Amino acid sequence: ARPRVGYFYTGKSGTQLLTESVMKLFVRDYQAVPVVVKEQSTVYDAIVTMFLEDVGTLFVVDESFCLSGILSRKDLLRASIGKQDLNSLPVNIIMTRMPNVAVCERDDLLLDVAKTLLDKQIDCVPVVKKTGKGQEVVGRVTKTTITRAFVSLTDDPH
Amino acid sequence: ARPRVGYFYTGKSGTQLLTESVMKLFVRDYQAVPVVVKEQSTVYDAIVTMFLEDVGTLFVVDESFCLSGILSRKDLLRASIGKQDLNSLPVNIIMTRMPNVAVCERDDLLLDVAKTLLDKQIDCVPVVKKTGKGQEVVGRVTKTTITRAFVSLTDDPH
Repeated sequence: ARPRVGYFYTGKSGTQLLTESVMKLFVRDYQAVPVVVKEQSTVYDAIVTMFLEDVGTLFVVDESFCLSGILSRKDLLRASIGKQDLNSLPVNIIMTRMPNVAVCERDDLLLDVAKTLLDKQIDCVPVVKKTGKGQEVVGRVTKTTITRAFVSLTDDPH
Repeated sequence: ARPRVGYFYTGKSGTQLLTESVMKLFVRDYQAVPVVVKEQSTVYDAIVTMFLEDVGTLFVVDESFCLSGILSRKDLLRASIGKQDLNSLPVNIIMTRMPNVAVCERDDLLLDVAKTLLDKQIDCVPVVKKTGKGQEVVGRVTKTTITRAFVSLTDDPH
């Protein structure tokens, strides 16, 4: 732990210290719990799940709990103003499908995921673990996660 | 501007520098353009505007361009799976209404807005300017804004 008060010679500029601090923030320390639905779920069920779990993004998984796609609030809103019956429309018709989903891993830097969120203009990146059967979903990083990390930068380092 | 290389005696710990850097980030330097709809707009029009402008939150304004409420993607999704006709439902029926809307001003710290976003579990805070007629909407701060600020902390300080 760093001393909370007192002066010491670091030999580094402010910007270097800042970058180093951000480079110590990893996905594993900030990730949230993933909320998933099955490929066979209907769009209506997905919307209900999104409200019950109060998340902005759902991950669609196959029988092995491996990632097959992703559903944003925007996807669901688009579907809900369409002509289809939400109770018979399966989520895999409207989801963004693998491999078109940006993913990250537990040991990635939060900074890199933040850049991915901005570059791809998305709200959420699933945290995955590669297994023999595919990419198991183990967490999620959202812009809320990054906002929490941003605030934590100024917290007291107890 | 800080020197990009070289050693100097700062007399401050890393955490102090970090906090100081974050304390230099103001709403005015990061805010995005607000997207607004009128109180008389229908929910259907609001959904179309949200897609056209590609934003997650709309501000509802009165004739003087002053804030009367706010609409999230979640509000619109909830309305769209309801029984009402979206083409005849006005947005002021489903919006979150003033004074129940958290606002900020251009000269506020981005850090304080980030805390508001987390505390109130919202995605967006309007930036307002007080006028004789109410609070004019001049910008927006979202979790995307905070994510951009987070990434910018490590940028080269040209």
